[in-house]
Order: sequence, then C-alpha cells, then structure tokens
Amino acid sequence: MKKYLAEFIGTFSLVLFGCGAAVVAGKTIPITIADAPIGIGLLGISLAFGLTVVVMAYAIGPISGCHINPAISIAMLVAKKLSLADTIGYIIAQMAGATVAALALLAIQKDAPGFSMGEWALGSNGWGPGYLGNYSTTAAFIVEVLLTFIFLFVIFATTSRLGNPNMAGLAIGLTLVLIHLVAIPITGTSVNPARSFGPAVLAGGKALQQLWLFIVAPIAGGVLAAITWRAIFEPKE
Amino acid sequence: MKKYLAEFIGTFSLVLFGCGAAVVAGKTIPITIADAPIGIGLLGISLAFGLTVVVMAYAIGPISGCHINPAISIAMLVAKKLSLADTIGYIIAQMAGATVAALALLAIQKDAPGFSMGEWALGSNGWGPGYLGNYSTTAAFIVEVLLTFIFLFVIFATTSRLGNPNMAGLAIGLTLVLIHLVAIPITGTSVNPARSFGPAVLAGGKALQQLWLFIVAPIAGGVLAAITWRAIFEPKE
Amino acid sequence: MKKYLAEFIGTFSLVLFGCGAAVVAGKTIPITIADAPIGIGLLGISLAFGLTVVVMAYAIGPISGCHINPAISIAMLVAKKLSLADTIGYIIAQMAGATVAALALLAIQKDAPGFSMGEWALGSNGWGPGYLGNYSTTAAFIVEVLLTFIFLFVIFATTSRLGNPNMAGLAIGLTLVLIHLVAIPITGTSVNPARSFGPAVLAGGKALQQLWLFIVAPIAGGVLAAITWRAIFEPKE
Amino acid sequence: MKKYLAEFIGTFSLVLFGCGAAVVAGKTIPITIADAPIGIGLLGISLAFGLTVVVMAYAIGPISGCHINPAISIAMLVAKKLSLADTIGYIIAQMAGATVAALALLAIQKDAPGFSMGEWALGSNGWGPGYLGNYSTTAAFIVEVLLTFIFLFVIFATTSRLGNPNMAGLAIGLTLVLIHLVAIPITGTSVNPARSFGPAVLAGGKALQQLWLFIVAPIAGGVLAAITWRAIFEPKE
Repeated sequence: MKKYLAEFIGTFSLVLFGCGAAVVAGKTIPITIADAPIGIGLLGISLAFGLTVVVMAYAIGPISGCHINPAISIAMLVAKKLSLADTIGYIIAQMAGATVAALALLAIQKDAPGFSMGEWALGSNGWGPGYLGNYSTTAAFIVEVLLTFIFLFVIFATTSRLGNPNMAGLAIGLTLVLIHLVAIPITGTSVNPARSFGPAVLAGGKALQQLWLFIVAPIAGGVLAAITWRAIFEPKE
Repeated sequence: MKKYLAEFIGTFSLVLFGCGAAVVAGKTIPITIADAPIGIGLLGISLAFGLTVVVMAYAIGPISGCHINPAISIAMLVAKKLSLADTIGYIIAQMAGATVAALALLAIQKDAPGFSMGEWALGSNGWGPGYLGNYSTTAAFIVEVLLTFIFLFVIFATTSRLGNPNMAGLAIGLTLVLIHLVAIPITGTSVNPARSFGPAVLAGGKALQQLWLFIVAPIAGGVLAAITWRAIFEPKE
Repeated sequence: MKKYLAEFIGTFSLVLFGCGAAVVAGKTIPITIADAPIGIGLLGISLAFGLTVVVMAYAIGPISGCHINPAISIAMLVAKKLSLADTIGYIIAQMAGATVAALALLAIQKDAPGFSMGEWALGSNGWGPGYLGNYSTTAAFIVEVLLTFIFLFVIFATTSRLGNPNMAGLAIGLTLVLIHLVAIPITGTSVNPARSFGPAVLAGGKALQQLWLFIVAPIAGGVLAAITWRAIFEPKE
Repeated sequence: MKKYLAEFIGTFSLVLFGCGAAVVAGKTIPITIADAPIGIGLLGISLAFGLTVVVMAYAIGPISGCHINPAISIAMLVAKKLSLADTIGYIIAQMAGATVAALALLAIQKDAPGFSMGEWALGSNGWGPGYLGNYSTTAAFIVEVLLTFIFLFVIFATTSRLGNPNMAGLAIGLTLVLIHLVAIPITGTSVNPARSFGPAVLAGGKALQQLWLFIVAPIAGGVLAAITWRAIFEPKE
C-alpha cells in the first residue's frame, strides 16, 4: 500500500510542479507590477517537469521505484520488472495523483484575475491549430513515441546492473528536461498518460478529445524501448 | 554553539542570495547600459533560493543538519529527530540570520539609483491586490501549506535510512527550486517563516501585516508532513 | 555491435535534443498563442546539448564509453585508449545517428506553419555574414579548436585514474553546456563533426560548404588535447 | 609544475567561459537573424562562471586543488593548507591564465561587427555611474567582501574532514553561480582578483583604475573566512 501512496504523491507533485509552473509562472503577462521580472518561459517549465522526477527519484525511488508514469509501469511490465497486479495498482495511483493535482491547481487558480477555465487552462497537452506551435497530428505522434522511447532507454540503461546507482535518478530526470526542451511547442510534452489525464479530465473539450494520443503514443514508445532493451542491451547476469 | 552559528550563516545566505537575487538582478529595467542582458527573471530567482539550500546542505549539513527554516526544525521536533532545546536555539539563529541578511541587503541597496524602501523592497512575501499575480488569501494559504508539505516529505524521505546520502542535499534543494517555480507569482514563495520574517521586520507595512500566514501555513504543512511520514512511510529499523 | 548501436542512439539523441531544441523551441516567435511563454533562448539550447551528454554518459557510458563525437573517438585513438577498428566503427555509428536524427527533425518540422527548408533550418553550424553574430572565419576556427581542446582536457582529466567516477559524466556534459554558452553566436557551436554532418548533409548549400571547418577544427583541438594530456598530465600507474 | 599548469588552464577556462559568455552571448542584440533566440542573460552568465568551477573542480581538483582564484590560494595559506611557495606559484599561474584568456577573447571578438574595444568590452569588473546598476563604491566593497566570505566558508566546510568528497565540487561551483545571481548588476561580480586582472589589463581605463577593489575586497573576505573557519568550525582530528 505504501508504494501506491508513494506513486500517488509523486505523480501529484509532477502535475502540481510541472503544470503549475506552466500555468502560474510560465508567462510574463499576468504579473501586474510595473517592472516585474520575466516569467520562467519554456526553459523554466522544462526544468519544473524534469527536476520533479530528479527529486522524486531520490525521495520515493526506494519505496516504489518512482515510476509516476503509466508508460513506465507498462514498459517495466513488458520487461518483466513489475508484476501485473502492481502495474494496475501503480497506474490507478498515478491517475488519481494527477487528477487531484489538477483539482488543486484549479483551486489555486480559480480566483486569480484573468483566469478562465478553458481547455488549456490547467496545462493540458494538445496539438494542431491554436495549440502553441500549431504542429500536425503526425508530428505530435512521432515526437511522443520517439521521446518516450529515448526516455525508457535511458531508464533501463541507468538502472541496469552496469548503471551508476548514485546518478541514475539525476540522469532520468534530466532526460525529461531534455524532452520538454524540444517538445513543448509541439504537444506541450506528455510522454506520460497520467500527466495528460489529470488536466484533460477537468478541462474537457479539445483536451479530452486529444487525450487518446497521449495514452497510445507514450505506451507504444515505452513498450518499444522495453523490447529493444531486452533484445539487444540487457547485460547478462 | 557551533551548530547555531551554522544555522545563522545558512539562513543569512538563503536570504542574501534568494531575496538579493530577486531585488538586485530579478528585473531587466534597473540596468541602464543600452544593450544590457536581461535580468535573471523568475527562473533565476527560483534557482537562487533552491541552490542555496543545495550548497548549504553540503556545507553545514554535517554541522547542524542544515534546517535554515523554522518549519523544518518544528517538523523535526514533531518527528522526534530534534530536541526542544535545539528547536528553540535553531529558530532563534534562523530568525537572526534572516534579519541580518535583510539589513545587509538594505545596506547594499539603499544608495542604488531608483531604490525606495517600500514594503516589497527587500523581497518580502505577500499576496493580494498589487502583489505580483494578485492571488487571493485562500490561494496563498493552500499553496504555502501544500508546498511545505511536499518539501518536508522529500526531506524525510531522502534523509531516511533508505535515502541516498550523496544525493539528498541536491534533491532537497531542487525541491525548493520547484516550489519557487510555481509559487512566486502567488506569494513570492515562503515555505519558511525565517525567510519571510527578516525582510518583513525591516519593511513593515503590509509585509508585516501579512507575515502571520508565512508563519502559520509553512508550520502547518511541515507538521502535517511529519505526522504523515511517521504514520505511513518511515522504514522500520 | 552493442557498443556501435549505443553510439548511434547517443548521437541520435544529441542531434534530436540539441538541434531539436534550437529549431523547435529556441525562438519565441513561432508560438502563436497571444500570451505565450518565451522560448528557451541560447541558454536553453546550451543546456539541451550539454545535458544530453550528461544523460548519455550515465546511460551508454558503461556500454561504449559514450563518445557520440568523432573528435573524441579520434583523440582517444591518439591517446591509445581506443583501437583503430573501434574508432572507425564508432565514427560510422555517430555519423549515421546524427543523420537519422536530422531526418527525424525534418519529418517533425516539415508541416509546421512557417517552416521552410533552408540551410540553417535543422540547426546547421556555420559562420560569417548572415549567420547569427556574423563572426569571421578566423574567430570560428579559433573558437572550435580552443573549445574542443578544453572539452577533451576535461574528459581526459575526469576519467583518469585520479578522477571521480560518480561525477565525471556530469562534469563532461556541463563542459559542453559551457562551450555552447560562449560559442552559439559565433558558429552555432559544433566541437563535434557528427553533430555538424547530419544537419548539413540534409540542408546542403552554405551549411555543406562550411562543413569542412567543423571536421578539421574539432579534430585538431581534440588531438592537441590528447598529446598535451599524455605529455604532461597523465598520472603514472 | 603540473599543478601550476593546471591552475593556468583552470583560470584560463574561467575567464574564457565566464567573460566569454557575457561578451559573446549575454545580450540579445548582436544577433542579426530576424527571429533570433534571446541571449543567455544574467542567468546564463552566472551559470557560465559557476559551472566552470564545477567542471574544473572535478578535472584539476585532483591535480592542484582547483583554486583558480588568488583569494582562495591566500585563504588556504592563512588556513595553513597551502605553502607560501605554492601560493606564489598558484597566483602567478592564475594571473597568467586569466590574461591569456582575455587575449583569446580579444582575438575572437576583434573582427565581430559592432565590436569596439572599450573598458568593459572583455567583461571587466567595475561599479559606479555607467556600470550596469550604477551602484556605489560602498555597495561594491560590501558585496565583494561578504560574498567572498561565504564562498570561502563553503569551500572550507565542504572540503573538511566531515564534507562529502563526491559533492564538494558541485556545491562550491554552485556557490559561485549564486554569487553571480546577486552581484552582476553591482560589480559584474569578481570575488577573484585574477578574473578581474586579465580583462582590466587589456582594457585599461576605468577597468584598470577600479582593479584595486577586486584585489583588496576578495582577499579580505577570504582571509576573514579562513580565520573564522579555523577559530570556530574546523573539526578536531
């Protein structure tokens, strides 16, 4: 039970810090003091998502392994590193954590001047006309599969018998920073069905209609990485 | 005595680097050279607070445990990891360190062109109309409780018997970076009664009137985390 | 074979994350939402290149040594730390990885509004009139030789018998961050013939005409560092 | 001899990366491409100086201790951790490294469009009217003494018998990041007589007239820290 709670807290933190940074501090405009500092921008948002993974890897890694992402749990199932029962328990905890975080963000934001609850208001993922860089469905799909593949490749490699146990958590979280540095204008960057689920369920509309891609593509990329890792790279005992 | 002095220096550095970065370098405008580089912005301010904790964790961690925050010391008391006498000694040292740092900042700033001593001039925390994102009291309170809860959860987890002693200090400091990446537009981000106390005591006015929230909310969040950690997560010997 | 595949994936990731961050997220303008956050800028691009090396050092370091750069492989050959056969195999894998990454970037970008396939469209290196800071050929050459020299010096030093095996990967990747923090306005920053080759081969034009410098200068700097290291610094067994 | 050469390379790199980042990439304006990414700003410049110390701590730390700063070498002499002969040798190597780096920067910059050799052109330190935030001599002096004091305190603490040898280099370099996050608008941030000497000697004018403060104040702060550390904090054998 402790490990499910850890996954809940970890995924809650990922959405609170990542989507929260994007929504509250990403832009310069909502700040009304005359000579205000500029917002954290795409770089700050990227760090918010990735450094949460760094932090949680060292906090809940010893408790649950710190997946906080259904695509990781499913890849671990495929790689025979997680039981089916735990995979289901982890995914439920992750979805719940992400949804409660989106609710917390809504509670914080709802009285803020200029806030209106639209489909992107809580940091939902999406793509196409009107979403950041206006990228196509093909670009969104390629990017989510490819980046989740690299994410899981790094996870398998750094946590393998040959990896460095001190630095694995840092390397994995920095990979999520890198993923966000490339993909925010394209999809807002998911590579994590739970991170997309929480905001989309509350926001509805286009965010909910486009949710399928952020379930299918990250899982496909993760499973592909699990198969590749086991077939080619896994060190022999 | 050595440990109280270490807490003094650590909290002094937190306010000098964190509030100092915000006040001296946060904005682009005070720089008068024609083609000046842009200021450090909300991202730079977030890094200033959080990296000070990273640095001090490795510098004074072996001496005092590097709390530099009364909410942490009280949570440690509740978790039976700090004596009452030391809790009081630490808090006095932290309050003194933060206040002397605010005085140093005032000494540095007072002759600067365009400086005027207002309630936010030394990086005071606050909220409401006229304070950065103009958030409500409810938003300020939720955010300070919730983020201090997560902060202490990470501290308990990474310094537990199962945590990684090499990386704990990095993870804890990066958590403070994350906390600032979300909350600066809401409250300026406290999660630390001493950090709020120093600037408010010198600035007076609204900064002093609003100080209560930055004492009550972080302590509530910290105590809640201590209770949760001990009830659910603490590893058995 | 496993090590060549690792070099392929590592160099693929370097170009996908580094050039991808530059092309997709570097600028603020392509983002059409009214109050969009600012792009990642030169700092974000620098972090994208350097942190990829940090991540890959811990992921594929144990498999191939994580060169992902022909200048490093050749310097290792000169320092008698890599066989000639492996040097050739590594360079082929690196060139292939960089080229496939440039193709992936093209696939992602080609439908994006406002995209047109010019010589700098995929993050090609270059210099002279019309390229970022309009620096001269001399400046470009000095900078690429000098920075690759320092890069390889850090690599030899941190991976020597006296180096810290936990932190070497972090130090090496951060060196690449530093190199980019200085040199993007001058050459876009190469210090890596493969990273220049992939985008240039697809982009053609001036990017391809100027490719020679990004092969000659990094290799010269790397070989110079190998000779200096062995002559002066290598610790005796 | 090897250790003096290491100090030369380390200080050369500090000025090349730190001042180089400030001069070449700090500002947005010199980049002439229409929709260019923004410059690295004060945050990027701060990271350039501090991360060079992180990198060099792991590269030349095992060879020379990585001082790359006369204020550190003199503080080490006072703390009886460095001989007088080595203190002199180190300082000469540091001054030479910084000066050669300033020459390299001049060679890179001199043909660049819009470059003119003024007193701040190579990243010289300074203060007063016309220098960034127009701070007073008092502010400049306080800030340089105080920040060098904290810098040396962290160095003594993290490298003491109780410090963490894996993380000391990271903590020390991040302290220099923090120092720059606060002090660039005030003095350009020195805390290092060699870093100020190289650019000032070439630039002449006001940069050279103001050099005295960047020799006196950092050495005063460093010596004060050495005395404080030995009197109060040094762990007994």
